Amino acid sequence: MAEMRLIDVKKEILSDNQARAAENRELLRRNRVFMVNLMASPGAGKTSLIMRTISELQEAFGIGVIEGDIASAVDAEKVAAAGVPAVQLRTGGFCHLDATMISMALQELELAKLDLVIVENVGNLVCPAEFDLGENKKAMILSIPEGDDKPLKYPLMFSVTDALVINKMDYLGGEADFDMTAFMARIQSLNQTVRTFKVSCKTGEGLESWTHWLRDEIASCRGAVPETIQ
Amino acid sequence: MAEMRLIDVKKEILSDNQARAAENRELLRRNRVFMVNLMASPGAGKTSLIMRTISELQEAFGIGVIEGDIASAVDAEKVAAAGVPAVQLRTGGFCHLDATMISMALQELELAKLDLVIVENVGNLVCPAEFDLGENKKAMILSIPEGDDKPLKYPLMFSVTDALVINKMDYLGGEADFDMTAFMARIQSLNQTVRTFKVSCKTGEGLESWTHWLRDEIASCRGAVPETIQ
Repeated sequence: MAEMRLIDVKKEILSDNQARAAENRELLRRNRVFMVNLMASPGAGKTSLIMRTISELQEAFGIGVIEGDIASAVDAEKVAAAGVPAVQLRTGGFCHLDATMISMALQELELAKLDLVIVENVGNLVCPAEFDLGENKKAMILSIPEGDDKPLKYPLMFSVTDALVINKMDYLGGEADFDMTAFMARIQSLNQTVRTFKVSCKTGEGLESWTHWLRDEIASCRGAVPETIQ
Repeated sequence: MAEMRLIDVKKEILSDNQARAAENRELLRRNRVFMVNLMASPGAGKTSLIMRTISELQEAFGIGVIEGDIASAVDAEKVAAAGVPAVQLRTGGFCHLDATMISMALQELELAKLDLVIVENVGNLVCPAEFDLGENKKAMILSIPEGDDKPLKYPLMFSVTDALVINKMDYLGGEADFDMTAFMARIQSLNQTVRTFKVSCKTGEGLESWTHWLRDEIASCRGAVPETIQ
């Protein structure tokens, strides 16, 4: 029997990622920028929520967006068309963003002019949950048509998120067979501190609670509550 | 319209990988070690070919094995039990090995004592083809039951490989509906310089042409033909 060594590559990668995430966090702190890492399945409404958020907050705050996408740049084009600087990270097949990619993207934004950076992660409920980007808060979207069982299937994502946006509330009671009581009980068992927001990006319902939360978080990053907060 | 920047993450990652692969290649050159990067689908026979190769060559050469696997360490245990030092790279979900992982693994092997390092890549015909590990040669296995259409579906892998081992030849003419003439024509159209070896790791058929190729490659890395070569 010869010698056998085991190298846990993922552990090494995650520890390297952690160091780079800390650098991003420090860069954001120095610039008093609040960064939120927005994660969800494809089609849950990440881009719609970002567009709604931009239209609600762009008068009061300097906003920048980092878009992660496997192959295209369409989301960043949409954001830039709304007057918000955008960086598109085309991952070329990678299923998540990591802290090194975010570091590259942050270098492309004029952080001194920004208060809020929204990162749209790659559409995936698995891998993005494991990678700290240096964000201040993690947020995720679960849309009603995806089903109330998702916390059972993707427990890590629901455990690590600071904010949970339940989108497409307009589907509730219609086609979708979604048991909100069971869903909320599953969330509670995984994450006692998560803030939940029930919204419809289509109708605009419930979005003010989400933007209110963002305003509070931006204000606490700035170290003072600005006039724009009611 | 605000500014929009595009960052091609994959390009950055591949260029970083290329630099690290060059370091691995230099380390191997200094130690006169021949490294082969063995790629294939799951179940094509990578571990069986490695075990056969070990038993044929371990008297003549110092051999080390680097095993890539998403979650387990069983292949490295099998190799170590045969008396060959093995490093298991547990990728934790990553679908390919990269030059940084190989650099970590090479540090665990006593290269001064070795002539041949065999890397068993993660079972996948897509991503491993894109990552240079610093190997001297790339080899791949296609097993008869996988079908003669695989060069059409995974052209990059068949284009970049230096050696193609066609395994499970014992299936030919039996259950398997494999058109060898069509297959070889597809290979020729993608790769005019590839060396092909028709083998059965089960019966041992054809393996001497494969091990002869390895002996020649090892010898040219050593800079002289050793006595063990007939």
